[in-house]
Amino acid sequence: MKRRDFLKVSAAGAAGASIASPAIAQSMPVIKWRMTSSFPKSLDTLFGAGVMMAKQVAEMTDNKFQIEVFAAGELVPGLQALDAAANGTVEMSHSVAYYYVGKDPTFAIYSCVPFGLNARMQNSWWYQGGGEQLGNAFFQKYGVIAHPCGNTNTQMGGWFRKEIKTLADLRGLKMRIGGIAGQVMAKLGVVPQQLAGSDIYPALEKGTIDAAEWVGPYDDEKLGFQKVAPFYYYPGFWEGGPMIHVFTNLAKWNSLPKNYQAIVANAMANANIYMAARYDEQNPAALKRLVASGTMLRPFNKDILEEALKATNELWADLSAKNPSFKQSIDAMQAYRNDEYLWWQVAELTFDSFQIRSRSRG
Amino acid sequence: MKRRDFLKVSAAGAAGASIASPAIAQSMPVIKWRMTSSFPKSLDTLFGAGVMMAKQVAEMTDNKFQIEVFAAGELVPGLQALDAAANGTVEMSHSVAYYYVGKDPTFAIYSCVPFGLNARMQNSWWYQGGGEQLGNAFFQKYGVIAHPCGNTNTQMGGWFRKEIKTLADLRGLKMRIGGIAGQVMAKLGVVPQQLAGSDIYPALEKGTIDAAEWVGPYDDEKLGFQKVAPFYYYPGFWEGGPMIHVFTNLAKWNSLPKNYQAIVANAMANANIYMAARYDEQNPAALKRLVASGTMLRPFNKDILEEALKATNELWADLSAKNPSFKQSIDAMQAYRNDEYLWWQVAELTFDSFQIRSRSRG
Repeated sequence: MKRRDFLKVSAAGAAGASIASPAIAQSMPVIKWRMTSSFPKSLDTLFGAGVMMAKQVAEMTDNKFQIEVFAAGELVPGLQALDAAANGTVEMSHSVAYYYVGKDPTFAIYSCVPFGLNARMQNSWWYQGGGEQLGNAFFQKYGVIAHPCGNTNTQMGGWFRKEIKTLADLRGLKMRIGGIAGQVMAKLGVVPQQLAGSDIYPALEKGTIDAAEWVGPYDDEKLGFQKVAPFYYYPGFWEGGPMIHVFTNLAKWNSLPKNYQAIVANAMANANIYMAARYDEQNPAALKRLVASGTMLRPFNKDILEEALKATNELWADLSAKNPSFKQSIDAMQAYRNDEYLWWQVAELTFDSFQIRSRSRG
Repeated sequence: MKRRDFLKVSAAGAAGASIASPAIAQSMPVIKWRMTSSFPKSLDTLFGAGVMMAKQVAEMTDNKFQIEVFAAGELVPGLQALDAAANGTVEMSHSVAYYYVGKDPTFAIYSCVPFGLNARMQNSWWYQGGGEQLGNAFFQKYGVIAHPCGNTNTQMGGWFRKEIKTLADLRGLKMRIGGIAGQVMAKLGVVPQQLAGSDIYPALEKGTIDAAEWVGPYDDEKLGFQKVAPFYYYPGFWEGGPMIHVFTNLAKWNSLPKNYQAIVANAMANANIYMAARYDEQNPAALKRLVASGTMLRPFNKDILEEALKATNELWADLSAKNPSFKQSIDAMQAYRNDEYLWWQVAELTFDSFQIRSRSRG
């Protein structure tokens, strides 16, 4: 008998006869969890970050802790992912906090709101600036704990069938845009429409809607909007740096051994940076293909941005007056943002601006 | 006897009598490693990201895998950290690749070079754009494997005793600036000086040097440069997004169980995002204090940036002509950068620019 075989047998015997090393067994229990995603598999970067996180957890635990990831609709509809984790249907949900503004608009602040934080600032606020503590104090009322698990970076402002030269061109425009961004655009005269991803293309093609926002070049290209709406506007000022979270059932989270909690938290951070890096990798090539195929890039004009900012500030005042939780979170986020951009305008923006101006020369 | 006590005793018995569960024992061995840092403890964010990484590894393994972190000079001098990992004096080193340009200028490209990538792009290139494969193929020739473990974000251009209004004002200026950045500044007439951090303040005070670059507001403030050099320039165009790495002895890395490799890799990603978030948290307040105490912020003028870019491109041509490894890496980085900034100028820069312009209004 080889030494290796002997060890196998005696270990099996030991485990059968008594209970093998409980200290080790406790720290590495076999656990199988399920995570429902708000995203379809076709949004491979959004969906993929959840799969990547689960893969990291499995590798770190020698497959003892396995998280099976389900696409939107496989177990529960995409927009009910958080509820499914909260009520214990699944242990985890990979989702966007702003999907749940129907429960409380405070949710949106921890993903993104119009004229909020860019991606790096959203991380900085969450991990270092008190966002995590404020956010999870809020989320725990819904029975979940949140971990950042991805960011799309600044999104695009969407596809328009006609050019939008002035604020007046927005009036009466039927645009696929939801949640708080839709409320802001409504103040500018837009008629917001709620449509699932798969329904956008036919609606734009038929002219049932005039415009639609989705994500950015890489994801938008796959839905083919460029074939039916030639004007592609930027920036998506309502999504400067949308943070994607995993919401985990709080009781299930608390039941995990401490080392498994640490393993999950580190896998989340890895997946968080992974999604942002992957979008940065994918978007330039997609943008080039779109422009080569005739897409016309246009910036929103200054009047539109200014008016949208005014509408946003009015909305924050309204919501803050009736919702103390919203007021606490929006005040904290805005104070953080104002400090961050004070610094950003010095080294970061100056560096990036020069790099862009000189791109063709080196 | 309580059930818990019974389990303890029988487990000890089982472990004594035979060998408890070798599968588990193999996957969670007790390991103690040492990591030498290139940073002093006073640079708490740079040094601290290494400590944070080690803490995550310990938590994920129930303290079975412990990495003890030593500050620069405790075991080996800061600038010999990579060598100490390569020759096995320690298992790991937390350092900056550009410290090792004396061995080969290719090193610098994986931390940062003048007019290179910003912090998010450096991540994207490493994790998704092929940087990791190219970088580690290079690093393995030195017996180490690299993992990103922090980023300072765009640095400042340094402290100047006199205002720099034109390119001519740089001629003959004695500036503390090292490595490749020093070579670029030399082409602009600057006389680069190599000085350790602790020697900069007295040299600036006495006028032995006229200028010095260090990191950014949070770290610079602690060294007190604002008291002896009133003009604080930006951006540090030679450090747009410096990536900090941990270099691990390759044989030691290969000897780790796969799950421990995964645990270390995830802890690195967590520490990578942690350092950048912490600098973003700390810099705004430090900048405000500096300006309140009389520091005068100044952008480098366009001529200086343009001339420095020209000097940089000349240097890349020279180095590429004699060093195929440098050429391969710099070509890859520059192609990546040009694509990234093509995209960055659309949504990201437009969003950030508006946020900065409107900062006082919302």
